[in-house]
Amino acid sequence: MTTQDARPSNAPGHGLDAGRAEAFLADFATMSAFGATGNGGVDRQAATPADIEQRRWLQSLLEQHGLRVEYDRIGNQFGLLELVPGAPYVVVGSHMDSQPTAGRYDGAYGVLAATHAIVRIAEELRETGELPQHNLAVVNWFNEEGSRFVPSMMGSSVYTGLMPLEAALAVTDHDGVSVQQALEPTGFLGDGDGPVAACCAEIHIEQGRLLEDSGTTIGLVTASWAASKYVVTVEGEQSHSGATVMPDRRDALLGASMLVVFARELADRFPGVLHTAVGQLDVYPNSPVVVASRVRLLLDLRCADEAVLAEANELLAAEIARIEERASVRLELERSHEWGINPYQPEGVALARSIAEQLGYPHDEILTVAGHDSINMKEIVPTVMLFVPSIQGISHNEGEETRDDDALAGLDVLTGVVRQLAMGGLGASTR
Amino acid sequence: MTTQDARPSNAPGHGLDAGRAEAFLADFATMSAFGATGNGGVDRQAATPADIEQRRWLQSLLEQHGLRVEYDRIGNQFGLLELVPGAPYVVVGSHMDSQPTAGRYDGAYGVLAATHAIVRIAEELRETGELPQHNLAVVNWFNEEGSRFVPSMMGSSVYTGLMPLEAALAVTDHDGVSVQQALEPTGFLGDGDGPVAACCAEIHIEQGRLLEDSGTTIGLVTASWAASKYVVTVEGEQSHSGATVMPDRRDALLGASMLVVFARELADRFPGVLHTAVGQLDVYPNSPVVVASRVRLLLDLRCADEAVLAEANELLAAEIARIEERASVRLELERSHEWGINPYQPEGVALARSIAEQLGYPHDEILTVAGHDSINMKEIVPTVMLFVPSIQGISHNEGEETRDDDALAGLDVLTGVVRQLAMGGLGASTR
Repeated sequence: MTTQDARPSNAPGHGLDAGRAEAFLADFATMSAFGATGNGGVDRQAATPADIEQRRWLQSLLEQHGLRVEYDRIGNQFGLLELVPGAPYVVVGSHMDSQPTAGRYDGAYGVLAATHAIVRIAEELRETGELPQHNLAVVNWFNEEGSRFVPSMMGSSVYTGLMPLEAALAVTDHDGVSVQQALEPTGFLGDGDGPVAACCAEIHIEQGRLLEDSGTTIGLVTASWAASKYVVTVEGEQSHSGATVMPDRRDALLGASMLVVFARELADRFPGVLHTAVGQLDVYPNSPVVVASRVRLLLDLRCADEAVLAEANELLAAEIARIEERASVRLELERSHEWGINPYQPEGVALARSIAEQLGYPHDEILTVAGHDSINMKEIVPTVMLFVPSIQGISHNEGEETRDDDALAGLDVLTGVVRQLAMGGLGASTR
Repeated sequence: MTTQDARPSNAPGHGLDAGRAEAFLADFATMSAFGATGNGGVDRQAATPADIEQRRWLQSLLEQHGLRVEYDRIGNQFGLLELVPGAPYVVVGSHMDSQPTAGRYDGAYGVLAATHAIVRIAEELRETGELPQHNLAVVNWFNEEGSRFVPSMMGSSVYTGLMPLEAALAVTDHDGVSVQQALEPTGFLGDGDGPVAACCAEIHIEQGRLLEDSGTTIGLVTASWAASKYVVTVEGEQSHSGATVMPDRRDALLGASMLVVFARELADRFPGVLHTAVGQLDVYPNSPVVVASRVRLLLDLRCADEAVLAEANELLAAEIARIEERASVRLELERSHEWGINPYQPEGVALARSIAEQLGYPHDEILTVAGHDSINMKEIVPTVMLFVPSIQGISHNEGEETRDDDALAGLDVLTGVVRQLAMGGLGASTR
């Protein structure tokens, strides 16, 4: 622990010195230019030119700071600082890919914060001559968003063994391009499995409004919401959308629309506890004068209470029959993901709390509703997840924003957490 | 009138001689191979390779029978038989383009029937030495379906002056290819306006089940249903489909889905009189974990009663406000088409009735719910529209089917109608 971390009482909203704060904000401005949209947002879907360019930029930034850059077989990007030959790594980072029209902070903030945290810790270790227990790695996980290539959190799923490598590489986008084909020309397909992890840390914007509404700067993430995710196929039959008499129609889009409306009604029955959504919906043949024969959609139920989620899933199953009868269609629901309330290691939460207290930032425990790569990582190693506030909770939107002071406060706490992890603060579990 | 038309009492379901029947069915089998799908249907969207190939085949068929093939500036394909130099034409035909996964009969049947009718009449005229009042033209209208290039009935709309040529040529498909770009390499873009029409005839499958249910072979189309067509844009706001609390969501897909469900409820309030449909619906950004910011959909109301249509439009307008409030979205409805109940010329219906009676086919008056090129043509010249039964009313579906006897009966009646039209049966109005 160094004295730079002591926060003077007249400090701004963060405890970093001015030089570190400026350097971070300057790098963040540079990184936000990759795939910048006209409206203050970014478009950097996985392995698109903007994502590729930005990864090259990160590689050069990491190398400038003396980290060795390495890619694994699914294109996860690691910046490695090996201080203790052969020791496992504290893996710190997030993702830099984005949704099609997205905000600048989602994921990217966490990768840059990881970089600045590790660079600072390395400097301090050089100054003090201390030797950590673990090595340090920045990670930029491949395809966290899953908008171009489904599913989301692909890179961390492969790294943690939750998804087979071959299945991930074979996933194709809307134009039939596979992950393998998209990554091969970039040079981001390595031949190893990445560094061995001892523990993990990730910082991310909240993407909700709890922290802002309660005046909290640092969210200590204790668990992820439970979730059920479905791939729904509605099968009807093509017919002339003008001439076919209404009772003869088997309208797949009607069935799909009834499900979208029901999903919202379901959420309204459990206010604040259940979130439901259909974000993706594709109609076939999607022609002006043809009753749709098939609709494929993705339905998510996310829930803070496992009992409520079970009840919601039962209500959903009951509704399916009603929709099938009303629209004369067949609905097939394939449950693609099923999670319970999934806790982060309590000792990691305690460690993060102690750092936030020590640095004097308002902090509180919080659940994550959104998925994050750290949710995969905590299955294999002790993992700390931190949130900083999102202004008005806006996310997956070009208007996504976090105050500079909050972003810097988050960097400050992350640095403290990673420093402790490097010193063996959570023991030495390894992948 | 020749004696071949007298139908013996022990005839099959049609009064054509065996040679003509076989020739027609053989050509129909050949034409159904263009763009054939695995399930007995076809995929021949406008100016796609299958449509282009089939047009080349029709050109050679027409030329074999001594017709001169000509294209106008929007790619309508004409087979001209000029018997009376300078006289206007009886324009007979339909379209050969199709929906993405469609049936073999829709449109294609009418073009082939026109060809066989005109070839037969030409033979008879050569035999008898009679001179008609009008010349004869087969037409294959460009892009009736409007699935690749919106709007539908494009070729006949340009021919009849209802749509400016330049606007039609500039329409682009999903990949940004314009009509002009798609047609230019095919040689189907002519430099004239096509033949001058004196009158018009079209035969088509019903695409409904009224004829079949009533045991009627020939439908005498008296009018087209009234219709209101809307382009609807639903504007919401992108947000995280997991993390954003439900009351903060402005979900464009929820708004769109409510409209789809309402459209069906609206039709159910006026059974048999009002048909409603949403066939095309596109979601943006259409990503698994993003609340949709925008949905664009096409909403059709078709109605046998203008007063009911007016009431339905009022109910729709009232519903919009409810949806906007419930889903926190904005709906913009642009009325893209508005038709009243639009009659075909009664003297044309009477002429068709007399031919059907003379040939001994069960016939009845019927309205058309679907759009047809003849609806455009009747705005400029007297036009006769005939229907033959669709099995179970199935259309815009690979399983679309019409009994051979009914298809041949239709050809028989069409031949009689066109013969009369050529002789001046409906006077000499010309475009």
